[in-house]
Formats: sequence, structure tokens, C-alpha cells
Amino acid sequence: MQLLLDNISKQVHLTAEALEIFPTYWKKDKLKKGQYLLQSGQICRYDTFVLKGSLKASITNQSTHKEEIVFFALEDWWATDLNSFHQQTPSFLNIQALEDTEVVKISNSGFERLLEQIPAMERYFRLILQSHTAALTRRVYHRNALSARERYESFLSQYPHLNARIPQYLIASYLGMSAEMLSKIRSDFRS
Amino acid sequence: MQLLLDNISKQVHLTAEALEIFPTYWKKDKLKKGQYLLQSGQICRYDTFVLKGSLKASITNQSTHKEEIVFFALEDWWATDLNSFHQQTPSFLNIQALEDTEVVKISNSGFERLLEQIPAMERYFRLILQSHTAALTRRVYHRNALSARERYESFLSQYPHLNARIPQYLIASYLGMSAEMLSKIRSDFRS
Repeated sequence: MQLLLDNISKQVHLTAEALEIFPTYWKKDKLKKGQYLLQSGQICRYDTFVLKGSLKASITNQSTHKEEIVFFALEDWWATDLNSFHQQTPSFLNIQALEDTEVVKISNSGFERLLEQIPAMERYFRLILQSHTAALTRRVYHRNALSARERYESFLSQYPHLNARIPQYLIASYLGMSAEMLSKIRSDFRS
Repeated sequence: MQLLLDNISKQVHLTAEALEIFPTYWKKDKLKKGQYLLQSGQICRYDTFVLKGSLKASITNQSTHKEEIVFFALEDWWATDLNSFHQQTPSFLNIQALEDTEVVKISNSGFERLLEQIPAMERYFRLILQSHTAALTRRVYHRNALSARERYESFLSQYPHLNARIPQYLIASYLGMSAEMLSKIRSDFRS
């Protein structure tokens, strides 16, 4: 829980009163490696913050039946299908633990009550959505305008910790290239 | 201004007092077709809402010198480099009017004061960023997992009004395909 509070305190100030009620809205949960946090077709019941471990969010391509990575979530970040969570509609995503993982999570009704009780959290969520939007916009642009090699270089400089922790074939899918292509780019790097 | 107030009132309730001070934070502006709202290298000084007309946001690819479309903004939507606006750092984007365009805009310091004066606006901006994030995530997934034809079909069903208003070569760039490819897909549709 402290990791989430530290994340929040970088953005907004919570009063002593807010700090006291804040934890009552959250539940801790653990996932074993390979366990699903969410499966496509389910409604995303919780907004989930990762305390430890890592997860992948993916969609199964209906034509090729291949898994396509949408995002990764490591500790100190969120692992939620925002659309499904806020609309309470079935998700298209599978979110699955890549390692043994610990999270804290809040229900949809809890989320709404939390924002009523602690209005500073409106600001916090707006601010992290702003950063997230900037990162997604950059990703859209990179996918259209950069070569596979340039996308990998950009990924390495932005997310060096992801490169060390996530299997390469999943990074290839995240970057929109085949595993063979990524392997070739990596061997060019080393030579 | 009414269009913006209508957009906001779909998400949050503004009190009579809030409605009175709200317009004082905003300036009206007009752009002729072809005029720039923002050029790369400039700091995005305003968060801008489109009342009438349309704009394209693009980046010049440094290798190919080609223009790559990042997003379109039509009336009832925002046309801002969010990252540049909130960090007050130079933008990578060019934002240019595709038609004679009318906007209302708010400065960065005005934006912060607006949120202090009218806390409901924190909620409004969080809610529109949530929808925006969902749309961007879908776009990342589509770009990696769908064929060019499938991406165009999805675009048509989601944004039929854009298809009618925006030149086809710009739509091709937005969808991450060549103008020739889009032209071929369109002629297959008609036959």
C-alpha cells in the first residue's frame, strides 16, 4: 500500500484524514505466475495497482489466433482495462501475471466513493491519465513513423527495466513486429 | 462557448456560480484554412477546444521528411499537445487548420486556476482523458493486430464523419498505410 501512497504523494497532497480512510477502500491480492487478473469477456471489476511482480495485457487476434500484447504492467503502475472498469462492460483484454505478483485493488463503486471522500484523487487520476495519454500518443506515432529497429531503440531507452524482465517474444508483439525480426535486430546490435 | 459547456454538462454539473466565472478563463480565436495553431518546437501555450472546423496534428518524420498524422480534431473535441501544454516544454507536433476553424482556448496558468475555482472540472478532464485513453489503446492494438483493410473498416464504422471531411491521403497516414494502399482498399469496396 505504501508504494501506492508514495506514487500518489508525488502528484497530490493527501490530508491526515484522507490518509486514514484511504486504505479502507483497497483490497490486497496475490497472483501466481500465469494466473489471470482478468479474462476477455469478463467485466473488469477492479482498478488494480501493482505492488510487486509484472503482468501482460493482451488480445487474441480473431483472424490469426495470435496473442497481441497491448501493454505491460510492473510494480508502481496500473493494470486495468479502464474502459471495461469505468463502463462496467465486458473486457476484450486478458491480463495475466508474468511472475508471482502482488496488487492492491479497488472496486468500481469503491472508486466512486473514494473520489467523493477524497477529491484530491480526482486530480491524481487526471494527472496520471495525462502522462498515460502522452505515452500512448507517442506509441501511435512511433508505430506509424519509425522502423522496427528505431522502435526497439526507443523502447530500450524509455523502458530499460522492461527489456530485462519481459520475454523477448512478448516485447516483439508489443512493438508490432515478429519475434524473428526482433531477434535479428538484437543480433545486429551485438555484432 | 456553448458547445464546450454542453460537452462539459454531459459529464459533470456546474453550479450557477461556476457557469458565471467559467467563460472568463477562455479566449475565442479563429484560424484560416492552412493556419497553424501550433508548430513543432513551440511550447503549447493553450488547451484548445474546437467550436467549428477541423485541424490535423502531425509530426514530420526525420528520416523520410514525410508528414505523419497523429490525430484529427473536429468541432466538439480538443486540439492540444497535452504533454507540451502541461509540462510547458517544446512540442513535436504541428497542429494546422484543415478548414476555417473557430476555437476557444485557455492558458496553462488559467487552466490551473480554473481547476482551483471549479473543482468539478478536475472530474470532467479525468473523464474525457479516460475515454481518450481507451480510444488510443484500441488504436495501438488495431495497428499491431489488424490488416490495413480491417483498420479502414474500423475507422469507417467509428468515425464516419471524419471519412467524409478529411482528405484520403491524411486518413491513410493516420491509419499507418500508404495513400496507394488506401486507394486500393477503397476501390475494392466499391467493386
